Amino acid sequence: MSTPLRLGIAGLGTVGGGVVQLLRRNAEIIAARAGRPIEVVAVSARDRARDRGFGLDGLAWHKDPLALAADPALDAVVELIGGAEGPARALVEGALDAGKPVVTANKALLATHGVALAQRLEARGGILGYEAAVAGGIPAIKALREGLAANRISRVAGILNGTCNYILTEMRQKGLAFETVLREAQALGYAEADPSFDIDGVDAAHKLAILAALAFGRPVDLGALHIEGIRHVSALDIALAGELGYRIKLLGIASRSEAGVTARVHPCMVPADSPMAAVEGVFNAVLAEGDAVGRVVLQGRGAGAGPTASAVVADLIDIARGRTAPLWGAASETLDASPAVPMAAHRGAYYLRLMVVDRPGVIADVTGVLRDAQISLESMLQRGRAPDEAVPVVLVTHECEESAMREALARIAALPAVMEPPAMIRIEGV
Amino acid sequence: MSTPLRLGIAGLGTVGGGVVQLLRRNAEIIAARAGRPIEVVAVSARDRARDRGFGLDGLAWHKDPLALAADPALDAVVELIGGAEGPARALVEGALDAGKPVVTANKALLATHGVALAQRLEARGGILGYEAAVAGGIPAIKALREGLAANRISRVAGILNGTCNYILTEMRQKGLAFETVLREAQALGYAEADPSFDIDGVDAAHKLAILAALAFGRPVDLGALHIEGIRHVSALDIALAGELGYRIKLLGIASRSEAGVTARVHPCMVPADSPMAAVEGVFNAVLAEGDAVGRVVLQGRGAGAGPTASAVVADLIDIARGRTAPLWGAASETLDASPAVPMAAHRGAYYLRLMVVDRPGVIADVTGVLRDAQISLESMLQRGRAPDEAVPVVLVTHECEESAMREALARIAALPAVMEPPAMIRIEGV
Repeated sequence: MSTPLRLGIAGLGTVGGGVVQLLRRNAEIIAARAGRPIEVVAVSARDRARDRGFGLDGLAWHKDPLALAADPALDAVVELIGGAEGPARALVEGALDAGKPVVTANKALLATHGVALAQRLEARGGILGYEAAVAGGIPAIKALREGLAANRISRVAGILNGTCNYILTEMRQKGLAFETVLREAQALGYAEADPSFDIDGVDAAHKLAILAALAFGRPVDLGALHIEGIRHVSALDIALAGELGYRIKLLGIASRSEAGVTARVHPCMVPADSPMAAVEGVFNAVLAEGDAVGRVVLQGRGAGAGPTASAVVADLIDIARGRTAPLWGAASETLDASPAVPMAAHRGAYYLRLMVVDRPGVIADVTGVLRDAQISLESMLQRGRAPDEAVPVVLVTHECEESAMREALARIAALPAVMEPPAMIRIEGV
Repeated sequence: MSTPLRLGIAGLGTVGGGVVQLLRRNAEIIAARAGRPIEVVAVSARDRARDRGFGLDGLAWHKDPLALAADPALDAVVELIGGAEGPARALVEGALDAGKPVVTANKALLATHGVALAQRLEARGGILGYEAAVAGGIPAIKALREGLAANRISRVAGILNGTCNYILTEMRQKGLAFETVLREAQALGYAEADPSFDIDGVDAAHKLAILAALAFGRPVDLGALHIEGIRHVSALDIALAGELGYRIKLLGIASRSEAGVTARVHPCMVPADSPMAAVEGVFNAVLAEGDAVGRVVLQGRGAGAGPTASAVVADLIDIARGRTAPLWGAASETLDASPAVPMAAHRGAYYLRLMVVDRPGVIADVTGVLRDAQISLESMLQRGRAPDEAVPVVLVTHECEESAMREALARIAALPAVMEPPAMIRIEGV
């Protein structure tokens, strides 16, 4: 067996610990597949004394993660600190500048600084693996960058945040309110104490920005994304979606048309028998549509120590074998310059749910606004009767433009009989 | 842009034509992702004059595919002739011996001669890509060999033959008999004039042998597979499966236990809400379970010009980029020597459907045989009443050993009241 790949790992939280343990547990298999042993020889973390369930004996300890980047005993560095700036970014840039391949699970870093990182790699050579940054253990980066590389991809979409998918699944299955399920998810460790990064769609947006860049061969463009989270999804809307034959999922969707690329993260109504509807709980899924391959769907666990470590170590095996690819699948100078299409130009069907005073003429006022905006209705549904009290009214539209829908919504919200801000959820055929 | 990868393609049927057209249509994207243009410069096929919908102008023509192997103008060869022996095998071996990387969609060749091919590659160097051999456009080989390489895989399973899945889907959705749907599939081009290779499970077995070798790091072992096709699946059993909450799918399943590896292709009853049940028509799916990643499922089109060409060109892009892996994911000398477990030792639950004379005492005779074989029943169902005529009786067993089931089945078949050979379908929890 040839010389080992000597590794330094910065960040020994759940994922870092998972990587150390996976490399130890499957050392023999990994060495056979990598063609050489992969050994952790140095680590960096905030607290050396913390009990992690495994020993650090024999490993060099660097209090400062930047010291890992410079450690001449290391062949490669794994960055699991997280965050687009600060020590994570400094470590990645430092290690690349020192000529060391880097593996990271840092979606924020890639989505924010991906263009500059590609230029850095192209200027000085080097490898930056990030399979673990998107969809955990699902080999989605490798599938898009290598497995489907012959295709012109027209669409990539996915359930990219396990916390949101868990919350939406529990809300549907148990008929519970968002806040109740969120607290439950926090108690179970599926949601953070500050959950905004997940439930406001930011985490999914980082991942979608990465997938879109790979799929379309286009510089990563987080700023162009439309981002909505799931805070405003109510138990009522989930129940009504079920009646209409839909499920509500937080999807990231990027698609390419003649006009350019649209990328958006928001709650969607998807047909209950679609592949995305069947992805429940903490599972993730990534869908790609290519001109040659048609539709490919990959499903698996999107987070957690094991799945994320699986992706990190896969990148390390690639490095040990000498398998590389340009950061975004192709050299920066070949990347597509097609424009980002703003969300206002999006076209699709919409679900609207209003709380209106139950009295004659209200539906006529609402549908009049839609008519004036040239939006045609597919169906209308009024649930329950309660004269002069608020009752839900559901409207499903045919395809229209987002800008027209927003204008109509503002007018509907201003109608005297409309008691709450209208709920709007986009309908997707995925 | 650097020098092109100059290609010779042997076999210009559906897939070969698809590869030529894909390389032309997406030439720019492919060159960017491959880092260099990929150009077809020579072809070999039986009939030069046939109208293929694209021109052969400017391409060298070799009547003998072996001449491609020797053509010094070529950097790589694509073998799309098919078959484990004959010109396909001679071409692959000849091209490898001439130092040319080879890409093939030939599952029969890999499943039959995979051990010798690996030794040949290790002795002389060389590359043999076969992503297209399994599950068409789904990047299943890459996922198992690279994406999930950090995992100890305990099980790999899949819907690996689109013809069988199409027939079973149509039988269920339309309530039609096997023979009727087979003729329909032949008319539509989904089944061959001689369909035995598909419907007897041979094609799925080739693919499963390849997946099992990759998943378990074990020499490919087609001879150890248990293979049953779908000829004996009746419309009645499909309807009864539905009543019991199952769907019937032809699955390939390979699993590893302490005792060794079991690999089998046969019709299965899978829960109607399982991911495999949702894969319908000509779609394929591959499922892998790893110790770190958990369950990963990949779905897509398993056959056809576009999906297969997508996989062939992905292999070519890997070659152009210099990305390689050992044929079976690890060097031959590291491959696992764990034994093959015979089908007789398989343990599982079983669905039995008998046609018995409707008279008192028959059920007691049947269940007495099962009791004597130590097989316990989960449920029993008798449909319809027709005194002294044949009526279907369904028995679902708890887990038992295949050898015990076979013995019991032979005794049940010999009972005077049992009018037809019993139907037996294994129940799987996938």
